[in-house]
Amino acid sequence: MRRIRLTVAYDGTNYCGWQIQPNGITIEEVLNKAICKLTGEEIQVIGASRTDSGVHARGNIAVFDTESRIPAERFSYALNQRLPKDIVVVKSDEVDLNWHPRYQDTLKTYEYHIINTKVPIPTERLYNYFVSFDLDVGQMRRGAAYLEGEHDFAPFCCIRTNAKTTVRTITDLQILQSGEHITIRITGNGFLYNMVRIIAGVLVRVGRGFYEPEKVKELLEGGERTREAVTAPPQGLCLMEIRYQNEE
Amino acid sequence: MRRIRLTVAYDGTNYCGWQIQPNGITIEEVLNKAICKLTGEEIQVIGASRTDSGVHARGNIAVFDTESRIPAERFSYALNQRLPKDIVVVKSDEVDLNWHPRYQDTLKTYEYHIINTKVPIPTERLYNYFVSFDLDVGQMRRGAAYLEGEHDFAPFCCIRTNAKTTVRTITDLQILQSGEHITIRITGNGFLYNMVRIIAGVLVRVGRGFYEPEKVKELLEGGERTREAVTAPPQGLCLMEIRYQNEE
Repeated sequence: MRRIRLTVAYDGTNYCGWQIQPNGITIEEVLNKAICKLTGEEIQVIGASRTDSGVHARGNIAVFDTESRIPAERFSYALNQRLPKDIVVVKSDEVDLNWHPRYQDTLKTYEYHIINTKVPIPTERLYNYFVSFDLDVGQMRRGAAYLEGEHDFAPFCCIRTNAKTTVRTITDLQILQSGEHITIRITGNGFLYNMVRIIAGVLVRVGRGFYEPEKVKELLEGGERTREAVTAPPQGLCLMEIRYQNEE
Repeated sequence: MRRIRLTVAYDGTNYCGWQIQPNGITIEEVLNKAICKLTGEEIQVIGASRTDSGVHARGNIAVFDTESRIPAERFSYALNQRLPKDIVVVKSDEVDLNWHPRYQDTLKTYEYHIINTKVPIPTERLYNYFVSFDLDVGQMRRGAAYLEGEHDFAPFCCIRTNAKTTVRTITDLQILQSGEHITIRITGNGFLYNMVRIIAGVLVRVGRGFYEPEKVKELLEGGERTREAVTAPPQGLCLMEIRYQNEE
C-alpha cells in the first residue's frame, strides 16, 4: 500500500465546491471517480482544503492510498487523461502512509481577484469580483496592515465554523494592482471559514471609501462577527498554494 | 428613425461566433432578440467584425435603426438587463443614419493571449492558448518586427477569404510579458480572415525555437499560404477596440 499525494488545480465555476454533498457535483467526487477508473479500486481522497462552491484552486492538495503499481509521478498524467478540462492534477508524488494533508503546520496562500471597471467585462466574470466604484488601493493597503500578524479572527469568520480556536496568523498580506485588476494576496497558517472572502469584502468597502482603514482594526477588536463584515463573492477567490512546514 | 451604435463585449466561449448561422447560437442573434424584446421592433443589427466561434471581444461595434424613443445612451443599461452575463453592451450612442460600422477607415486592435506554463491551468483555459514549451519572447519580438507596416498578408490569411485585396497595414505590434502570460497586441487598418490567429500561430513557433525569426519574413515573401503558417486556437483571441478614423 502506498499513499499518493496530488496537487490539484481547478476551475470551481461548475462545481458545488470540494467536498462531496448530495445536491450537485463536487471536485472530490470527480477525482474519486477518475482514480477508481484508473486503478480499479474504490478510492476516497482526503483533501487539504474544502473550498466552497465557485471557488478556484491552483494548488489544493489531496491524498489517497492505492495498491496499484503505477509510478507515483505518473498519476498526474494518467488522471489528466480521465479528468474534465476544468480539473488538472499539476503534480503527483508519494508520501508516507501517515502523511495527512490537514493535521500539519502549513502556510496557505490565497489570492482574491477584483476587476475594477465601470462596466462588467464578460471574459473576467468567472474569476473576479466586479467592482464598478473606483477603488483606492492606498486606503485598502492601510486597512490591510491591521490584519497582519496573530489575531483572533472571529469577526472575520462565518458563524458556521467548527474551529476550536479562531486565533490565526497572517504572515503576509499584499494588495497588488495591474491596470484594472486588483489582487489581494494573503498567506497565513490557517484560515477560518469564509475568512479570506470576508477580508476581501471589508477591504473593498475601505477601497470605495465606505469604511475608513481604521474600521478594520475596530472590527478586529470587536471580538465577534457583525453585519459590517461583509463577504465578497466566491468566484474572486483562488487557493494558490499550500506549503508544508516540515518540508521546507 | 434613429441609428443607435452599440459597443459590445462578450465571452465567445458559448457562441458559434458573431454571425447568425443555422447550427448554433450566435452573438448577433442574441443581441437582435434582446433589442426586439426591448423596443418591440423586428431588429437586425449590423456588426463591424464577424468574430469566429470561441473568439472574445471587449469592443466590437454594432448598429441598428429604431423608432423607439429610448434615449440613445440608455440602451446599454436597458439591454444589459435583458442580455445573458456573457454579453455586455459597454456603451450606446446615436450616429448618423448613413453611418456604417464596416465601410469606413478604422484601426482595429486585437490581443492574442498565451499562457506559458508546464501544465494547463484550468482557470486560464477559456481565454488563453496554453503553450507548455518555453517561449523565447525576444525571438518572438524579432519575428514580429517583420510584420509591421504595409504588406500583402495573403500568406497569413485563411483561404476562405472574400477580400478584394490582401494588402493590409499593421501600425503597431507589441509582445507583452507578465509572468506566465504573453500577449500579442496588434493594431492595423484591417485584418484578413484568421490573420491574427495565423500571426499568433507562427510567432509561437518562433518562440519555441521551431522557426527562426526570419521565417516570418520568408513566409510573408512567399506570396501565398503554406502549411507552415499554422493557426492558433480561437479562445486566445480578443477584439479589443475599433477606432473610426474620422472620429479621432
